[in-house]
Amino acid sequence: MTSTLPETSASRLDALVSASVGAARPAADASDEDRARWLESVAARLDLHADELVPLADAETHLGTPRLTGELARTTAQLRLFAAVLREGSFLEATIDHANPDAIPAHGDLRRLLVPLGPVAVFAASNFPFAFSVAGGDTASAFAVGCPVVVKAHPGHPRLSQRVAALVTESLADAGAPEGLFGLIEGVDAGIALVEHPAIRAAGFTGSVAGGRALFDRAAGRPSPIPFYGELGSVNPVVVTAAAAEARGTELAQGLAASFTQGAGQFCTKPGVVFVPSGVGFEDAVVAAVPDLAATLLTPAIRAGFGRGLAALAAESGVTVLAGDAAQDTDVVEAGPVVLATDVAAAVAHPAALLEECFGPVTLLVRYDTPEELLRGVRAVPGSLTATLHAQPDEDLADLVAALRDRAGRLLFAGWPTGVAVTWSQHHGGPYPSTTSIHTSVGSTAARRFQRPVAYQDAPAALLPAALRDDNPLGIVRRVDGVLGLA
Amino acid sequence: MTSTLPETSASRLDALVSASVGAARPAADASDEDRARWLESVAARLDLHADELVPLADAETHLGTPRLTGELARTTAQLRLFAAVLREGSFLEATIDHANPDAIPAHGDLRRLLVPLGPVAVFAASNFPFAFSVAGGDTASAFAVGCPVVVKAHPGHPRLSQRVAALVTESLADAGAPEGLFGLIEGVDAGIALVEHPAIRAAGFTGSVAGGRALFDRAAGRPSPIPFYGELGSVNPVVVTAAAAEARGTELAQGLAASFTQGAGQFCTKPGVVFVPSGVGFEDAVVAAVPDLAATLLTPAIRAGFGRGLAALAAESGVTVLAGDAAQDTDVVEAGPVVLATDVAAAVAHPAALLEECFGPVTLLVRYDTPEELLRGVRAVPGSLTATLHAQPDEDLADLVAALRDRAGRLLFAGWPTGVAVTWSQHHGGPYPSTTSIHTSVGSTAARRFQRPVAYQDAPAALLPAALRDDNPLGIVRRVDGVLGLA
Repeated sequence: MTSTLPETSASRLDALVSASVGAARPAADASDEDRARWLESVAARLDLHADELVPLADAETHLGTPRLTGELARTTAQLRLFAAVLREGSFLEATIDHANPDAIPAHGDLRRLLVPLGPVAVFAASNFPFAFSVAGGDTASAFAVGCPVVVKAHPGHPRLSQRVAALVTESLADAGAPEGLFGLIEGVDAGIALVEHPAIRAAGFTGSVAGGRALFDRAAGRPSPIPFYGELGSVNPVVVTAAAAEARGTELAQGLAASFTQGAGQFCTKPGVVFVPSGVGFEDAVVAAVPDLAATLLTPAIRAGFGRGLAALAAESGVTVLAGDAAQDTDVVEAGPVVLATDVAAAVAHPAALLEECFGPVTLLVRYDTPEELLRGVRAVPGSLTATLHAQPDEDLADLVAALRDRAGRLLFAGWPTGVAVTWSQHHGGPYPSTTSIHTSVGSTAARRFQRPVAYQDAPAALLPAALRDDNPLGIVRRVDGVLGLA
Repeated sequence: MTSTLPETSASRLDALVSASVGAARPAADASDEDRARWLESVAARLDLHADELVPLADAETHLGTPRLTGELARTTAQLRLFAAVLREGSFLEATIDHANPDAIPAHGDLRRLLVPLGPVAVFAASNFPFAFSVAGGDTASAFAVGCPVVVKAHPGHPRLSQRVAALVTESLADAGAPEGLFGLIEGVDAGIALVEHPAIRAAGFTGSVAGGRALFDRAAGRPSPIPFYGELGSVNPVVVTAAAAEARGTELAQGLAASFTQGAGQFCTKPGVVFVPSGVGFEDAVVAAVPDLAATLLTPAIRAGFGRGLAALAAESGVTVLAGDAAQDTDVVEAGPVVLATDVAAAVAHPAALLEECFGPVTLLVRYDTPEELLRGVRAVPGSLTATLHAQPDEDLADLVAALRDRAGRLLFAGWPTGVAVTWSQHHGGPYPSTTSIHTSVGSTAARRFQRPVAYQDAPAALLPAALRDDNPLGIVRRVDGVLGLA
């Protein structure tokens, strides 16, 4: 069902970026309340068009109506969360130190806040056509803090991208946002030119390790480097302790099977590597729980990649196929779930081959015999978005939790990692390669990626931003002479 | 007076980094109060040895006793500021969202805080042998949040570096800090190996554009890239409006002359480019105010670089020498101050040549005729740590302030940029090349460079860090269900 759209030309790209440069100061100067209304306007317009957008998304992504309906609701809730963040005001980190002749060294009046970085490039993902795409979290968080955005559409859902872009443009105009605040481009070359454009000040990206690293290298290699907030690939380790397998093995096996096949395994938080105790029957329970699934993956390229990844994993020495077909004919559109197994010795010996993300409905069970062997296996896992620990209440878990925390940004002690809440405390990020920065792409603090601090020294009141004036006209939480409060 | 010390060998470097890896978990697990005491122990020991350290620093840097006495006091005050930051507790950004089945999407219990990144590399600067060196701000802020540190000593003050390192090691041991928390290395190759060492998780750097960019490229080019917090070079633009020059030209000229020659112009915040109104006598006032200075610069390499930089600037077409000797014989140890002048047209035509940092006692006056020409000139200035605006109260300055804010991290409306307060609201950073990140290297938020967020989902109370427990045992400010407070 996908159609190919023409690549954005160099001159069109330049015009869009120039427009975003023109929008940067009005967006920065707009009040937080104004920007909150822009976000709410976009959210309302997308909700209004749900009946049109969801089928369009399903036609291009095959993710199904229930999932896409939920994803759209999540996307508009995300836009509204950032409106709430704007009204709460502490995202500005307003900080005031009055002049102090007794300090070491003595100092004048100094006031700090965060300001927008400027035009931002956003690279949309294939697997969340709403939540991590044209009007997704990167766009919402950049708009929130006053940054214009140019989105590079994902070729997996071009018609949906264009339609959402049109709705974003209309709703921003209706809400009085500056012209040029939003633009959409298409094509690989245009994307590279975007991240290298001198006027672009930061980039957000969700996608593969290979594609993300190539763009990260471009961003870092610019004459004037920019931050590249990439979410690349993640194996999301799960640990099932022997005690947990014994106490609730069937329930855990069912949960795992549902999680690694959810969305046909096309989640960045899919549990890809599962440490399981040997000889207690947990593997059999997983095999028994695997659903009878035949799913059309997002794109033919992802289908082919899944086939290649599976074949490579299955060909590794020490890897066995427990369930499903590891030699799938990728000319067949629909993919089926696969469970592989190995042991810690093999995983530790070949971490680059075995402990690498394989996008699609597959998981690798890694058997361990002892707690020490389990720790050794966990320490070989690359940086991940999440790590999940299923254990029993009376176990001594300090070393295991420390080892998992070293490798992941979110630690789960119940449930499965494939759901990602959109809240103040969410962290969706982790050590490389799961992300290329120490920041999150989901939750309220995602906005900080597109802000930089500025300190005002001895500024006349008339030249201070409202957030820094003595009378606190915005009524926001600030730090004054070291103390956080509403003063 | 400087001596050369042997390069750190590859095996010694590896041993030091291995020790820092060993210290990472005890440092992360230590209480904030414990870490505050480590910092205070280092501060007390350095203060106690001031009478030994200041003469040692002066012998190697020629910066003089008053300045170095003040710099040591500032350095120990900085260590104590981070102890205060630890006790205040909001640096952890503790955030709690209770489970909410009505949220979109519904979510479980989610709690976030910042944890240490792991072992940090610190590259010491030549020009602040205490404050930006072995026990300077990078080291203090990394220790504060629980990161072990390996410092690469600056060759400009090797004996001081070794002595400070010995005092740091002793005072940390006395305070009960884990072994391996601190190490010192020397030599260019060892520094490169340090930033490329797989166990190093971040780097702080203060130095030249060329040296900093080379290390930034290494950090970004690693198989697993790390954040490189570099402070490279800054021209720190100053604008004097026609009205200000008329109202208080002599006072401003004297302030400028004192600022650009302070510490023999070897400050990263030296005002290097000054936009001055044509034809109102301001240039003459600057020339009249230049002190009769003959200063020994930090190192022979810096002396030679100053001579080369001066000669290159003076050779540019459109540049004239207003005061001092632009063809200094760099075999003569002592350097004298120089005032150069050009106009906006020349500066805009050749920004790479004219608007680039020249480390040492020189400043470039850039004449403008109209407010529009002034704006054009300001917009050609590269990213800087500071920008200073001397204007009169009734002037319309919105465009000028916006243009300066685009290019700098600290905006001054009185005084001169060469003093840098160590406070909660300080921002010592700015667009590239002044820094390679959006973070500060001075002030309380410098600690955030060495932290990453972790979210705990549905964690049993016994496995939660103290900062995230329901009863708030640390008594710190947290965000609970979206509301900041002491709950």
